[in-house]
Amino acid sequence: MRILLINGPNLGTLGRRRPEIYGSLTLAEIVERVRARAAELDCEIVAVQANAEGALIDFLEEQARGADGLIYNSGAFTHYSYALRDAIEGSGLPAVEVHLSNVYAREPFRHTSVTAPVAIGLITGLGWHGYIAALDALTSILRERSKREGAST
Amino acid sequence: MRILLINGPNLGTLGRRRPEIYGSLTLAEIVERVRARAAELDCEIVAVQANAEGALIDFLEEQARGADGLIYNSGAFTHYSYALRDAIEGSGLPAVEVHLSNVYAREPFRHTSVTAPVAIGLITGLGWHGYIAALDALTSILRERSKREGAST
Amino acid sequence: MRILLINGPNLGTLGRRRPEIYGSLTLAEIVERVRARAAELDCEIVAVQANAEGALIDFLEEQARGADGLIYNSGAFTHYSYALRDAIEGSGLPAVEVHLSNVYAREPFRHTSVTAPVAIGLITGLGWHGYIAALDALTSILRERSKREGAST
Amino acid sequence: MRILLINGPNLGTLGRRRPEIYGSLTLAEIVERVRARAAELDCEIVAVQANAEGALIDFLEEQARGADGLIYNSGAFTHYSYALRDAIEGSGLPAVEVHLSNVYAREPFRHTSVTAPVAIGLITGLGWHGYIAALDALTSILRERSKREGAST
Amino acid sequence: MRILLINGPNLGTLGRRRPEIYGSLTLAEIVERVRARAAELDCEIVAVQANAEGALIDFLEEQARGADGLIYNSGAFTHYSYALRDAIEGSGLPAVEVHLSNVYAREPFRHTSVTAPVAIGLITGLGWHGYIAALDALTSILRERSKREGAST
Amino acid sequence: MRILLINGPNLGTLGRRRPEIYGSLTLAEIVERVRARAAELDCEIVAVQANAEGALIDFLEEQARGADGLIYNSGAFTHYSYALRDAIEGSGLPAVEVHLSNVYAREPFRHTSVTAPVAIGLITGLGWHGYIAALDALTSILRERSKREGAST
Amino acid sequence: MRILLINGPNLGTLGRRRPEIYGSLTLAEIVERVRARAAELDCEIVAVQANAEGALIDFLEEQARGADGLIYNSGAFTHYSYALRDAIEGSGLPAVEVHLSNVYAREPFRHTSVTAPVAIGLITGLGWHGYIAALDALTSILRERSKREGAST
Amino acid sequence: MRILLINGPNLGTLGRRRPEIYGSLTLAEIVERVRARAAELDCEIVAVQANAEGALIDFLEEQARGADGLIYNSGAFTHYSYALRDAIEGSGLPAVEVHLSNVYAREPFRHTSVTAPVAIGLITGLGWHGYIAALDALTSILRERSKREGAST
Amino acid sequence: MRILLINGPNLGTLGRRRPEIYGSLTLAEIVERVRARAAELDCEIVAVQANAEGALIDFLEEQARGADGLIYNSGAFTHYSYALRDAIEGSGLPAVEVHLSNVYAREPFRHTSVTAPVAIGLITGLGWHGYIAALDALTSILRERSKREGAST
Amino acid sequence: MRILLINGPNLGTLGRRRPEIYGSLTLAEIVERVRARAAELDCEIVAVQANAEGALIDFLEEQARGADGLIYNSGAFTHYSYALRDAIEGSGLPAVEVHLSNVYAREPFRHTSVTAPVAIGLITGLGWHGYIAALDALTSILRERSKREGAST
Amino acid sequence: MRILLINGPNLGTLGRRRPEIYGSLTLAEIVERVRARAAELDCEIVAVQANAEGALIDFLEEQARGADGLIYNSGAFTHYSYALRDAIEGSGLPAVEVHLSNVYAREPFRHTSVTAPVAIGLITGLGWHGYIAALDALTSILRERSKREGAST
Amino acid sequence: MRILLINGPNLGTLGRRRPEIYGSLTLAEIVERVRARAAELDCEIVAVQANAEGALIDFLEEQARGADGLIYNSGAFTHYSYALRDAIEGSGLPAVEVHLSNVYAREPFRHTSVTAPVAIGLITGLGWHGYIAALDALTSILRERSKREGAST
Repeated sequence: MRILLINGPNLGTLGRRRPEIYGSLTLAEIVERVRARAAELDCEIVAVQANAEGALIDFLEEQARGADGLIYNSGAFTHYSYALRDAIEGSGLPAVEVHLSNVYAREPFRHTSVTAPVAIGLITGLGWHGYIAALDALTSILRERSKREGAST
Repeated sequence: MRILLINGPNLGTLGRRRPEIYGSLTLAEIVERVRARAAELDCEIVAVQANAEGALIDFLEEQARGADGLIYNSGAFTHYSYALRDAIEGSGLPAVEVHLSNVYAREPFRHTSVTAPVAIGLITGLGWHGYIAALDALTSILRERSKREGAST
Repeated sequence: MRILLINGPNLGTLGRRRPEIYGSLTLAEIVERVRARAAELDCEIVAVQANAEGALIDFLEEQARGADGLIYNSGAFTHYSYALRDAIEGSGLPAVEVHLSNVYAREPFRHTSVTAPVAIGLITGLGWHGYIAALDALTSILRERSKREGAST
Repeated sequence: MRILLINGPNLGTLGRRRPEIYGSLTLAEIVERVRARAAELDCEIVAVQANAEGALIDFLEEQARGADGLIYNSGAFTHYSYALRDAIEGSGLPAVEVHLSNVYAREPFRHTSVTAPVAIGLITGLGWHGYIAALDALTSILRERSKREGAST
Repeated sequence: MRILLINGPNLGTLGRRRPEIYGSLTLAEIVERVRARAAELDCEIVAVQANAEGALIDFLEEQARGADGLIYNSGAFTHYSYALRDAIEGSGLPAVEVHLSNVYAREPFRHTSVTAPVAIGLITGLGWHGYIAALDALTSILRERSKREGAST
Repeated sequence: MRILLINGPNLGTLGRRRPEIYGSLTLAEIVERVRARAAELDCEIVAVQANAEGALIDFLEEQARGADGLIYNSGAFTHYSYALRDAIEGSGLPAVEVHLSNVYAREPFRHTSVTAPVAIGLITGLGWHGYIAALDALTSILRERSKREGAST
Repeated sequence: MRILLINGPNLGTLGRRRPEIYGSLTLAEIVERVRARAAELDCEIVAVQANAEGALIDFLEEQARGADGLIYNSGAFTHYSYALRDAIEGSGLPAVEVHLSNVYAREPFRHTSVTAPVAIGLITGLGWHGYIAALDALTSILRERSKREGAST
Repeated sequence: MRILLINGPNLGTLGRRRPEIYGSLTLAEIVERVRARAAELDCEIVAVQANAEGALIDFLEEQARGADGLIYNSGAFTHYSYALRDAIEGSGLPAVEVHLSNVYAREPFRHTSVTAPVAIGLITGLGWHGYIAALDALTSILRERSKREGAST
Repeated sequence: MRILLINGPNLGTLGRRRPEIYGSLTLAEIVERVRARAAELDCEIVAVQANAEGALIDFLEEQARGADGLIYNSGAFTHYSYALRDAIEGSGLPAVEVHLSNVYAREPFRHTSVTAPVAIGLITGLGWHGYIAALDALTSILRERSKREGAST
Repeated sequence: MRILLINGPNLGTLGRRRPEIYGSLTLAEIVERVRARAAELDCEIVAVQANAEGALIDFLEEQARGADGLIYNSGAFTHYSYALRDAIEGSGLPAVEVHLSNVYAREPFRHTSVTAPVAIGLITGLGWHGYIAALDALTSILRERSKREGAST
Repeated sequence: MRILLINGPNLGTLGRRRPEIYGSLTLAEIVERVRARAAELDCEIVAVQANAEGALIDFLEEQARGADGLIYNSGAFTHYSYALRDAIEGSGLPAVEVHLSNVYAREPFRHTSVTAPVAIGLITGLGWHGYIAALDALTSILRERSKREGAST
Repeated sequence: MRILLINGPNLGTLGRRRPEIYGSLTLAEIVERVRARAAELDCEIVAVQANAEGALIDFLEEQARGADGLIYNSGAFTHYSYALRDAIEGSGLPAVEVHLSNVYAREPFRHTSVTAPVAIGLITGLGWHGYIAALDALTSILRERSKREGAST
């Protein structure tokens, strides 16, 4: 199974930026842990981080065809990027949105997600564990779907 | 470790009620799976389901002291029960909110959670996997905290 | 035919509470008139009144299977009980919402019904006649449906 | 007793227009059923249908004096015609508003009625049965009032 | 000078409809007083009353060219008829809006006038005196303008 | 008859401040014209202008008892001074609010009057003629009332 | 092909009313140009202009059956006439909404169209060219549909 | 005199729950102080605490008849329980609403009280002193009323 | 102990202005009762009443240093005077806001207090008893604080 | 004549992404048709597609000087990119906004266009025909302007 | 050059009031620094501080004629004093609004300035440096204007 | 001292784009003046201009470490780029936001700044002088801080 992993704006400075909110791991360390878990689940991770909305949409356009699912932390784009939303929906991939912090306990503008309606689910506030949880759940769901479809053939 | 598991109104009819949205497992089957996973994690589950807000608050008052964490699916109380919110916050327990369906892809009133700001995190849309994901993440976070505190002594 | 009749919070004090708005009949007298009319229509009434949201949901969980339709006056729950709404929708019963007073001529908070979207219809402002009207219309609609289904077999 | 029956814009195409929402009876057939029921209740119906707001107000100005009550389906005027509202209120007639479909389960703009606050009640979602229910309830209420007033003389 | 006088929906029943709000004079009596005052001011009144928005717009289309000013009581159209607003603006006439009652002391929907922004002024709450006041002020303003223009030639 | 005439903040600079909006007469000149008209109507004017909300309230407290009516241009206080509103209402005087410009054709904040609901009427956009119109209408209304009360004794 | 062409309130004064916004052609001239283009496209135009909402709905009721498509400029009805919206939707005709001016660059109330959701498309701001563009696009779309349906038979 | 004392959800954990906000006294200790003060005022307290909305309404139904007044801290129900509001209003008792903390200095949802409009007054932010203040004021007001009524007999 | 007592706009006319809402005592009589109670509590009252916002702020600037607490009825300033709010907060005094009437049962604009967030508490609807209650509670709270601080030295 | 043609985010996947909404033509095919029509109109198309807001603004900065007009489909940027709006306005080019689908019949966030106020017009819902319609109308308008300016020299 | 310097409510207590927000300089010290800088720029400062809105408007009325520019810190009046706004606009002076703290990082009510639209610019959050920056920029702008005007003569 | 200077979208066309709003200097000329002033203040400027949000965030990520402060004109990103806001906040640099025009006197969408809450201050409407003022104030504040920290060592 091939899972895309997108990290959006300002997530490249994880570990440095406001660790009391976002934790002390760097993004590289988190991606490493996701890959490690993915290996146990016999699954490949294709990861990208970019601060540019257009770059994330380009990535989705190019990678969606060969992929089975998507995990994304859209950073602050979550709150206004309808273009990213259209790209996620357009990819046709089952997607899980992840946020490190509990966005509902922060500024009001962070309570709105314009991307979540096109995902299958959302995980917030569980720090880097959220990515692992997303991977576990997404792969389980994909395997269930694949079994059902196999069964119905 | 002892984890409270609360399921709110109308979750007693899972499996029967709108399976295209909530899945075909009964609540008993889901709780069984959570207990199985908890056993692997060396952790005890104290579960309750009630349709009455007051009963859920009573449960929290009685059980909070001996517990280490809380997983709850507040059902439709999510959208208006400030009393339940106060009870969760008052319990002092690290809590994870779980919803079976992707509430952001449904009616607008389901996009608001009055309880989420007092949880540490939220998982939606992943079906029964969401409970397992919540358990995995919550126990990991509790173990990390416990280590840190041990270390600092 | 078996019709459930639910009366929500504060309806137990009808006749005493603000008769200029709600009329001078007690709830027992109204239910009596509904039963009388039901007898003429060859139909059984299973009635409940409770001030507790959870009790109404419990009632619906227990009684929905053997019933053909639902008439409910959700009292003030009308304006915020998404839990009751989910229970009505989850029951799968054709339901008619009844209010004694014309809620649109009263305080603004009474103009909103969170339960009405899952009913098939709503009757307000006609006093106890509203229950009779609901019963007449609901049983007619159920008979039409039953004929159509019979015809199509 | 003399009851005015007003049907507003686009109700002339009933039976043709969106039968899955409005039912398959024509307006003429519905009015026929209302008249039949009225005959049983010893009551006369004066009916009008118009697509023009001004025509409905003119009708009310001319007919209100000799009438005892009003049943009206204001169609889409329901949502903005304060002029019609003023005309209904100005007529001094006890009035019941009727809608064929459950407006609360449709587009948000249909959830607002600017005319309902000046009616004594509202019936929605019960199809053509709503008119019969309105007639039954309105005539009962008028008879009760007339008895009370007779009694107090 | 020629002044158009428009009275909108439900103003034909003045004197009968809610005299505690609108006063006990009929529209004919009010128009009579306006004409009397106009005669003193050497000015002609062309008056119309209609319950139909389209009829008022037609009137403006036909009469605007030969007229010098407009006094209108748009009744409930005040609150939503952008079509009437466009007609008033399109007429190019200096216009004064008049309401018999103090709309600001009544229901919230009456606090908004969609027509007032295209008038030169508004008079509310002064009963039939408001029409006289409008006529006095409008003719004074027209005379001032005419003098200024004469002077600047 | 004794009429109070209040002019609020920034009205002392009339004639200088934005004459394209407020006209070229000074406040003194306007008050002079009001007094002239009052003399014709056998009526006394007690006038004040102040930029301070407190001073206007003090004036009302002191002068209300001996007065029969009130004409006021509350300037920008119109849009927020609930204290002035309470003072006008507390005075018990029939009051007419006047604005020189058509506030509905200007910035949105000028469309709201917190004082108008306690007046009997409002005149806007007619320049200095608005004061005269207010005086004419107010004295007529006071005379009518006084006659009615005389008649009913 | 037969195309209905509806022009709503105040469009009868085109050429005279605010030419800097609406252009200097009269409605007759515009309709002439539309007919000329229709002739080239082998298509018949049935045109109406009315200031009355009811008249436009009557026209749709009468003409919809024999027609293939609809082009309409609903004038100010665009912003509030839910009755016209229901009539357009009820007609079952593919419809294109046209506005002469760029409504998004004008007053906020003009930014909302209650009719556009039931059209297939909208053209604004292109002056009389907008009608031609609507005709070209609508006939092309109708021909495509007709071909597809022919093909699938 | 007999005064009902209602304490709503989560108030049973006072002293434990967030003492920096709610103070360090338990509810039992507070009720004790209220009773002590009541004894001085020759007045009886009937107290209840419940986490269930229905239980509070049941209590009011049963106890209202024999009581003279009501002091209630509706906890988080304050912000949404229209059912409790109806029960308080329906009881016919003069009621004082009490909150321990200054709700206006906390989260925005706490600034709204749906129950306060049916009370005679509200006391917030004075900790347990608020209950004493409510008792003192309520008994004084009841004694004044009783004197006035005695006097008028 | 020294307590400042501020009464804002229009409170100088108490007893005269709308006694059905504000009671029949004059402000002097109320202040007298407050002073009498203060004497029992061994506490001095420094009282002011002004209709001018600036005068109240000046008073606070001058008197805050020598004072221990503040009781204020900000009248209509409650709803908009952020300047008064800043002055109260800037004074550093523990403050209790008092309103004579139940503001929540009156016009919507009275439901908002911009000053309450900087007070320690609020008392509304208890008439002149509210001032006494405020004094009792405030002095008790000040004594508790003073004891706690004494104890901690 | 030289016309710029901008296509924004996610328009590069046309034909693949949700063809039931956006149609089955690829962007390349659409641009081809636009160029073909342009050739007939003796006009050159300079086209760009980018998923990055910055790239579109760069394009406008570089190309605006040599161009005569602009046709753009801003995709989801339509709903929030004030930067693109400023770039379009800053270009000084007459611009027509095009959307393939009828945005008014889709999610509410698509009903708002922040770019439309700086265009001269908008075409939505006509699929690829919308581009042709925009080109036809824009070139006609440019030719009219050019004639008018030629004439006035 | 002569520059007016207005400081509004509560700015007289600078240095004492909340120094963590407003800094530890007194207003006298700040004005001293402004005067010192003004001397370097060959410019005279006329300064006032008042807690009363009316006093600030009076000051502007009296001083505007002889002045070249205005620097003002309207304190909390910023958020509601439309009267002060009208006075600033009416003065005709180029004005710069200054706030010591970053109002956008504080309570929401401080994010709105009703006065800023009539200023030429705004400086917030730079403490006493904001006044110096305002003076530097305002005098530069005035000199530029004066040069331009000189040049164009 | 090293100060970053960021200019956002469309600022590259300064001097050309709408000079009546933004002035006639090019960005290069403004940056030149800022550098000249920086030289006097013994301070280095690192400047960037980009139309792409991602590029600005990249710049901040790379340059923040070696810098002492930030001056930025976020252009239209001001109104929606929460990603840029997070980047500014994440940089940990004291920042001053600058806008050339008085955004409060323009379109409503320009009145909101999502970036200002993470800056220390904001300067608007002073044209290119705003940049100089920002530099002067920011360097003064940095020197004060550095002194205070030196002193406290």
